Amino acid sequence: MSKKSTVLSVAKKAKAAAGEMALLPTSVKNAVLRKIAKDIVAKADYLIKENQKDLKAAEQQNYSKALVDRLVLNDKRIKGMAQCLLDTVKIKDPVGVVMQTFKRPNGLVIEKVRTPIGLIGIIYESRPNVTSDCIGLCLKSGNAVILKGGKEALYSNQAIFKVVQDALKGTKVPTDAIQLIASTDRAAVNELLKLDQYVDLIVPRGGEGLIRFVAENSLIPVVKHYKGICHTYVSSNANLKMAHDICFNAKVQRPGVCNAMETMLVHKKVAKEFLPKMAESLIQAGVELRGCDQTQKILKDIKKANESDWFEEYLDLILSVKIVNDTKEAIDHINHYGSHHSDAIVTDNKKEADQFLKSVDSATVYVNASTRFTDGYEFGFGAEVGISTDKLHARGPMALEELTTYKYLIHGKGQIRN
Amino acid sequence: MSKKSTVLSVAKKAKAAAGEMALLPTSVKNAVLRKIAKDIVAKADYLIKENQKDLKAAEQQNYSKALVDRLVLNDKRIKGMAQCLLDTVKIKDPVGVVMQTFKRPNGLVIEKVRTPIGLIGIIYESRPNVTSDCIGLCLKSGNAVILKGGKEALYSNQAIFKVVQDALKGTKVPTDAIQLIASTDRAAVNELLKLDQYVDLIVPRGGEGLIRFVAENSLIPVVKHYKGICHTYVSSNANLKMAHDICFNAKVQRPGVCNAMETMLVHKKVAKEFLPKMAESLIQAGVELRGCDQTQKILKDIKKANESDWFEEYLDLILSVKIVNDTKEAIDHINHYGSHHSDAIVTDNKKEADQFLKSVDSATVYVNASTRFTDGYEFGFGAEVGISTDKLHARGPMALEELTTYKYLIHGKGQIRN
Repeated sequence: MSKKSTVLSVAKKAKAAAGEMALLPTSVKNAVLRKIAKDIVAKADYLIKENQKDLKAAEQQNYSKALVDRLVLNDKRIKGMAQCLLDTVKIKDPVGVVMQTFKRPNGLVIEKVRTPIGLIGIIYESRPNVTSDCIGLCLKSGNAVILKGGKEALYSNQAIFKVVQDALKGTKVPTDAIQLIASTDRAAVNELLKLDQYVDLIVPRGGEGLIRFVAENSLIPVVKHYKGICHTYVSSNANLKMAHDICFNAKVQRPGVCNAMETMLVHKKVAKEFLPKMAESLIQAGVELRGCDQTQKILKDIKKANESDWFEEYLDLILSVKIVNDTKEAIDHINHYGSHHSDAIVTDNKKEADQFLKSVDSATVYVNASTRFTDGYEFGFGAEVGISTDKLHARGPMALEELTTYKYLIHGKGQIRN
Repeated sequence: MSKKSTVLSVAKKAKAAAGEMALLPTSVKNAVLRKIAKDIVAKADYLIKENQKDLKAAEQQNYSKALVDRLVLNDKRIKGMAQCLLDTVKIKDPVGVVMQTFKRPNGLVIEKVRTPIGLIGIIYESRPNVTSDCIGLCLKSGNAVILKGGKEALYSNQAIFKVVQDALKGTKVPTDAIQLIASTDRAAVNELLKLDQYVDLIVPRGGEGLIRFVAENSLIPVVKHYKGICHTYVSSNANLKMAHDICFNAKVQRPGVCNAMETMLVHKKVAKEFLPKMAESLIQAGVELRGCDQTQKILKDIKKANESDWFEEYLDLILSVKIVNDTKEAIDHINHYGSHHSDAIVTDNKKEADQFLKSVDSATVYVNASTRFTDGYEFGFGAEVGISTDKLHARGPMALEELTTYKYLIHGKGQIRN
């Protein structure tokens, strides 16, 4: 069988099962999620054995330590995967929720009701837990799903998929509704992206290269995020101790993720007081600072930030620092150089906070908190299939509600149009 | 100046104005909408004079009578355009509405707030009133807009645009926020579709060829509808008098539009009683019927419907008719051959109605009413920029709410992540 027909046949089977998925009662979906969670833990040895094959290949390929770390499956991580499924059980089922009801002068009653989207394609790299997280979210939201993981996690993903498929047997969830494309090349991705007749939504998760490839080649709607260039703005009205702790957390606690801070903006009035202590903490934590001219006058030993630094997602212990004249300049900088992901202000002035919240054009805008909270779990969504910096369909963490659409149900008594 | 730089500079200017648009208070937007409405009526003579140039060109090109009719601007239609703007004034401003508020265990308060999308591109054909309708909806929803009308309405669109631009002078609505691309070729459309750095959403309105071109060439998210293959299913539990009137209305009242019925499905139990009278009315109104084998046994003089008929959007006085064995067969037919636009069941059985509403995978699903009601105005939305048969972002009529996205505003007291 050719690769094309494999991807096509997978999509056809999944689409055919989507109708059944949409009608599953919540109780059935929750019972199956619990069964999968139980089986994942029970079959931990098998998962770890298969994961070893990926780790061995990664070693041979000389993958970076960070990548290898993301690949590892151990007892703790497997329990985490199961827990994520159990968390998804607890989240309210969005399907069937009546979002709005209105009655027209002619007596028509129009209900706007949440429904599953249909068939979701998720294209991702490295971490194997994405496989079970996404299966859980798609199943609970009544969608069929096609998973296409990275080649670096091929054995791990196939093993998780096998455990899930075995768990589905004898349940009312059709096994065809959850599919894994085992092919390891990008041609399979390209095939999938053309199947707009079957697939309703593509969510790519991974490096910018993958995401750009998907966005440029897909005939199917894509919800994505390219980068997380997150800012924290320390205003002249900031509690500087709070600002210090928030900035430190946003940069240092986990620098390799999309919601970590990449640029710190500081109001000129507080820069002299704030920056030396802040710099000391950051440098002690191993952070390299790159500053604007004004910053360099205060922090004399740091590198200069170039124009390109303001556009940079370091994903590392590097921070660019800029002194601004006012809140407007901070907002303009964020809207111009940022990635519309997560940006924060530290201020005790409500009016200034409101201006920032209103004018910063990002998926999540914070007052007095670390940008690190942009995350499906932290939002109380159970998990996430991704974080969107797009504005269409979904913005910010995407979980159950974001995996639904709606339809209008219209109840008449024989109304016709004049 | 090259065409490329014209489109690009238009997009840059509009994007720069989008931030200002997003912050406009409702009162300002409403006052400007009223001013435009007034000016459109006051300058009716100018609009009609410019419209004559398009009509003359249409005549020279031997355009169809239907197309020429859609192009015409007269006093009545100009008043209709103004009324549509005044209707938009009355609709609640969606911007700033708090959709949801939730508090996390760590004390973070998360608000989900409606915001404008930013810059919308609308690509459309023929009817000049689309120009003012879309300006009204984009303005009220706080978006900047780039309009690209068809060459057949070039003079009319430019005239409407000029009246709007003049009306904006001296108001707080930046004139740059509303742009018209006057170029008449598809290369300009193609340029626009690549400007994903500036344009947030593309809505194409027109024939299937235009829409497919847009969908295949756009790097920007597109919300669209290809076709309206709408069904009415006359169940064995139908009030047959009601079914007759609904089907007649859905087919005959305005056959050239997307929410008109193209296929009628009839339960075998009622076919013999229902079809002869129904056929008589339809044939009398000039409708050509095409039936399945079973239908032909009852209506002996009609043509046979081929497989391709079930996929056909006639947009004309033609109707395909099929007899089905049960509701499940009707639903399967609709989901397979339909375009997920608008489909209706006529039944007095609540359980059967619920099954139909749940299982038909369309933007609007009706019980006991004509499919002709799928329309922004009929829904009470004032007007519409289009009707979506996509599932992402918006489904069904797209008006003010569908021209918004949301962002999360997060209020903290110094929270950091562990």
